Amino acid sequence: MAIVMHDLAGKDPAHRFSPYCWRTRLALAHKGLAVQTIPWRFTEKQALAFSGQGRVPVIRDGETVVSDSWAIADYLEDRYPDRPSLFGGARGRAHARFVNGWADGVMLPGMVRLIVRDIFDVIDPKDRDYFRSSREARFGMTLEAAQEGREVRVGEFRASLVPVRLVLARQPWLGGEAPSYADYIVFGNLQWARCTSRFELLAADDTVAGWREKMLGLFDGLARNAPTV
Amino acid sequence: MAIVMHDLAGKDPAHRFSPYCWRTRLALAHKGLAVQTIPWRFTEKQALAFSGQGRVPVIRDGETVVSDSWAIADYLEDRYPDRPSLFGGARGRAHARFVNGWADGVMLPGMVRLIVRDIFDVIDPKDRDYFRSSREARFGMTLEAAQEGREVRVGEFRASLVPVRLVLARQPWLGGEAPSYADYIVFGNLQWARCTSRFELLAADDTVAGWREKMLGLFDGLARNAPTV
Repeated sequence: MAIVMHDLAGKDPAHRFSPYCWRTRLALAHKGLAVQTIPWRFTEKQALAFSGQGRVPVIRDGETVVSDSWAIADYLEDRYPDRPSLFGGARGRAHARFVNGWADGVMLPGMVRLIVRDIFDVIDPKDRDYFRSSREARFGMTLEAAQEGREVRVGEFRASLVPVRLVLARQPWLGGEAPSYADYIVFGNLQWARCTSRFELLAADDTVAGWREKMLGLFDGLARNAPTV
Repeated sequence: MAIVMHDLAGKDPAHRFSPYCWRTRLALAHKGLAVQTIPWRFTEKQALAFSGQGRVPVIRDGETVVSDSWAIADYLEDRYPDRPSLFGGARGRAHARFVNGWADGVMLPGMVRLIVRDIFDVIDPKDRDYFRSSREARFGMTLEAAQEGREVRVGEFRASLVPVRLVLARQPWLGGEAPSYADYIVFGNLQWARCTSRFELLAADDTVAGWREKMLGLFDGLARNAPTV
């Protein structure tokens, strides 16, 4: 029986763009596990009540329910040890946590004001009041003002990717000779932007852009074939 | 026969403070390998000619010469596979590269203007013209001006440590249940500041400060017992 995954969707239910859900989608594909995704919107808190919290991704694997993208990767690695490894052992997992911390604590905050107004256009109409009011409270300004000036500010974001660039100068994937969960973490963030906005985050000659192209092709183009705007 | 390591020294030859050399010192200690360190100053390029380049750390292990802290860690891991592992396998090593990239590309640049004028006071007098002119050219200002305002700017540095903090909220070491080379990378940078400056980089209640305390105690207090200013 396929694993069920609750996945953030836009007004088009096929439109899936959460950075955390993309980490999980790619982790499932890496493990070769079938998945049935269920579209979920920000305001459907009740639909996740069974998980004891209110955010996606959430997976149900038989009787087991797991929420939080890191916890899900942990679970998949431990539950399916004979499938291709996401982490490559305890130390690989420990070190991947640093990538996760950077992606959550630096990369995502550095991206949100480049695309937040565009996201507003793709989410379900019933989510818009919630999305606008929560994000405007966080930024202390309108979504429009938060996104303004992105043509200039994108330079700071590109500069912030220096750790990724330094790694990719030495090895083809963040995971080394093959992709690992570290790749899915960082790519998931870029896929969030790619699916919600036409604003290009990366310079064409950036090694990160070349790596993103390779990521888009993994698993028969799983990420490339996903609906975008 | 002990491994020989060329190690940056100050006017006091016992005073060792290079962040990269500290990574190597701790990697050698982790492997349980004896080391004989040789003090080296910035302007003694000729003393490193045998290594084909002009920076420390450089190690000589029998007939083998290796320079660059990452390359040395790589070498030690491959040459001494039966000793405690620095990386925990290929994937752990690949993921540690990200920590190295962040430490080199974000953390160190974020630190240098907090301590650079203090470093000037501890280096050998014969290095001072070189040090001042090369750093002032890089910053486009005097060492004194570069360090000015650090009481305010240290806030940005502390904020930049968020990935470290997010990891340490979930596990005791960057390496997981025990220290790994990832810990030595990040700690080496902090030890650079600790050995050269009395300016406190971390808030006392920061989890990173608690972890630094534990790092200072490793290997019978190797880092704690090193000379500071």
